[in-house]
This record gives sequence, structure tokens and C-alpha cells, in this order.
Amino acid sequence: MAGTLYTLGLGPGDPELVTVKAARLLREAATVAYFAKAGRSGHARTIAAGYLRPEVRELRLEYPFTTEVPLRDPRYAEGMTRFYEDCAARLAEALRGGDVALLCEGDPFFYGSSMYLYDRLRDEFPQEVVPGITAMSGCWTRAGEPIVHGDDVLTVLPGTLSAERLAERLRGGDAAVVMKVGRNLPKIRAALEAAGLAERAIYVERGTQATERILPLREAGDGPAPYFSLVLVPGRQRPR
Amino acid sequence: MAGTLYTLGLGPGDPELVTVKAARLLREAATVAYFAKAGRSGHARTIAAGYLRPEVRELRLEYPFTTEVPLRDPRYAEGMTRFYEDCAARLAEALRGGDVALLCEGDPFFYGSSMYLYDRLRDEFPQEVVPGITAMSGCWTRAGEPIVHGDDVLTVLPGTLSAERLAERLRGGDAAVVMKVGRNLPKIRAALEAAGLAERAIYVERGTQATERILPLREAGDGPAPYFSLVLVPGRQRPR
Repeated sequence: MAGTLYTLGLGPGDPELVTVKAARLLREAATVAYFAKAGRSGHARTIAAGYLRPEVRELRLEYPFTTEVPLRDPRYAEGMTRFYEDCAARLAEALRGGDVALLCEGDPFFYGSSMYLYDRLRDEFPQEVVPGITAMSGCWTRAGEPIVHGDDVLTVLPGTLSAERLAERLRGGDAAVVMKVGRNLPKIRAALEAAGLAERAIYVERGTQATERILPLREAGDGPAPYFSLVLVPGRQRPR
Repeated sequence: MAGTLYTLGLGPGDPELVTVKAARLLREAATVAYFAKAGRSGHARTIAAGYLRPEVRELRLEYPFTTEVPLRDPRYAEGMTRFYEDCAARLAEALRGGDVALLCEGDPFFYGSSMYLYDRLRDEFPQEVVPGITAMSGCWTRAGEPIVHGDDVLTVLPGTLSAERLAERLRGGDAAVVMKVGRNLPKIRAALEAAGLAERAIYVERGTQATERILPLREAGDGPAPYFSLVLVPGRQRPR
């Protein structure tokens, strides 16, 4: 009897923003798996900490590299594919013995690494995915800025896109969220300026976490931002 | 001593998708307020039902009209402004006696009616907003369709826009979500066809609720859809 893979969205960082359903499945879990960078405890694992049983079995899925190999280098794609294949094999082995809960920050189907395991394992094992609050919802709430009203259009863009593609998609939109800021802040700022949106933009670092920082983008420096940072452009339509 | 207004996002419909924080605040609430259509119990109120104390005081905020007055009619904007003014006055009166929890489906800052009260009351009373899982996250999870991977751009559009504006914003994007489907399905379908995205589109009615329906858009009829329906176009990038 194969186990079920539960892929649990755990939200933006505050452990109280986990859903009642994910909290229940965390408390019941005999085996959990999670992604982590070398030397780090893993963001999803940190969010889940207070809900797990002391005797839980843990499968740590450690990324082979983070920024050492550039994204455009063919070794990056090859290394990541090999990594996901290996993770899927480890999860499959664990699933043959019972259920596994895969912990994910944010919402699993919204730019989540867990999708690479979901797709690889979906034919062999029953799966259930529990949605979570996205990082962007956590950030616009903490910034006190309703993001869209009425007929506003929202565009969500990864900051890893080229400056041209960013500006092209930002132009003519109402509200925007730029994810994956990291080292891309100067490029993102230039694209927002080209689209006439820089003045309204807000920079949010580690939204809902203890070390959260929120400030107008024009006051944020151009140095590398943490991975958990994004830029918000609230829509133009204001409440009546 | 004025009370605090807690604006609680309660997610897409399944009561287990409420956050641990919102569940705690619901259990503690002495007074709750919620929007409802005439003759209906109110979607947010239904999600909250199992968490509320039997003696909770309820402020029902009933919309003056739903589809009887067209959106473009000046009477619509006037009537809604008067309605929100009246709701804000009722909440202010209750807040002078203690805390109030305003119940919201989905995420309050994402196309939520609660924003109109948040903005009106923010100078007079302390406020705290709790984010919730958006309807779109609930729907793409239930559809089993990761919505964005890697460098995908996501565009979120209200189906109330003109066919031209819909097609303009859909063209050149990767993934899309069209909200507020209601009577707009024929127009949305035409815009998706014009943008070359109709084949990948999925129609989701009442996602995460007991009466949920999920099917390819090409198999959905053109009749009026319920308010809690939307159209998903998953991104083009597939997991590796």
C-alpha cells in the first residue's frame, strides 16, 4: 500500500499564517521532507517547527548550489534536473513505507520547487496539495496597501527576466508585483522607471518575518536584496 | 478606549483553509461583521460558522443591490458609496464598544470589499489585517495545475473589463487568471481566443467548495457563471 504525498503550502513566514488543514497534517506527519540551502535550516522547515512531533522523520533535500553557478549556465539546468530526480527517488522510497508531507513556503503551485516533485511522482502515488498564503499576499498586507480594487489588472513578474521584458509587461498595467528580487534590484528599478511606476513602488524584505523591512523603493539601496524580498506597485484605483 | 478592527481573510471556501491566526481571532471574537447579498447567508459568514462562539454579536452588512443596477449606471457607484459610508458608521459605533472582526472571503487586499471600510476607518481606529488564501490559489490547487514556474509572468484580470482590454493584457503573457466571470464568459472566451490562450484555459466554479466544478473552458457552456468562478491559463513552462 503506497503512501500519499501531501504537499503543504505553509505561507509567507509567520507560523500563525499556516492553515488549519496544514497544521493538522503537520501534527499527524510521521515523515516530512523539505528543501534547504547548504548551511541553512530551510525556510519551510522553520515555519513548520512548532507543529511537528519530536519523533518526526526528516528528509532534508539540499540544493546542490544556489548562486555559485549562474542561472544561464547549462550546468545549472543539468544540476537541478539531477537534483530533482534524486529528490523524487528519495520521496518515492519513503512513500513506499507510508505518507510523506512535503513542506513548502508560500503556495506550492505559485513558483514553488515542489512542483518538480509533484509532476515526477503524480503517476505513481496519490497526492494532495494544500494551498498556502503567497509571499506577495503576506507582503501587501504588512505594507498596509490594498493591491487591487475594482477593475485593476495585476501583473506578477519574476525579477530574473530581462529589463526589456520587465518594462514591456509592466507598461500599461495597473498593479504589479516583482518577485525574486535578489541581485536584480537595479534592473527592476530601471524597468519600473521606464514604465512610469517607480514612484508608487514599495520594497518589502522578509514580509511577515521578525526581520521584516518595508520602505518606498526610492529609499531602498541597490545592494543585493535577500531572496525573500519583493517589490509591490499598488493599483491606481483607490477605494470610494 | 476604542477597539481594534480585525479584517480577517478566510480563504476560498473550505473552512480548513482558514489560517491558525484567523481561527484564533474568530474563536475570541465578541462581535463579527460581514457582507452578504439579500437573501443569502454571506460567503465569509458560512466559512467562519464552525469557529464562532454561539453568543457572538453579528453585524450583517447587506449589499443594497447585486445585478439589478448595471455597473456602469451612475446609480450603482452612488448607491455603493452610500452603502460603504453606512457600513463604516455602523462599524465605528461597534468599535467604540470594543474589538470587531470583519469577515472576508479570500484575501482582504485582493479585490476585497473590506478595503472600502479599511480606508474609511484607518485614521480613527487601530486595525489589523490577516491575509487569506486567494480564490485563485484555491482553484489552481484543486485543478491540479501549477500556475507559474521559473520565469513565467502571471496576469490577473477582472472579467468585467472590455473584450479589447482583456485581449490586450492577455497577449504576450504566459499564465493568466480571469476573475469575476459571472455573465462575462462569452467575452472572456473571445479574448482568450484572440490572445491564442483558449486551448489551455480551464474553467473552475466554486473551487474548494462542496459544489465545485472543474473542466476545460472549451467544454463549459456560455450561460451565466456563478460569482465564485474563474478561468485559469497555466503557464507555458513545464517542470523539468
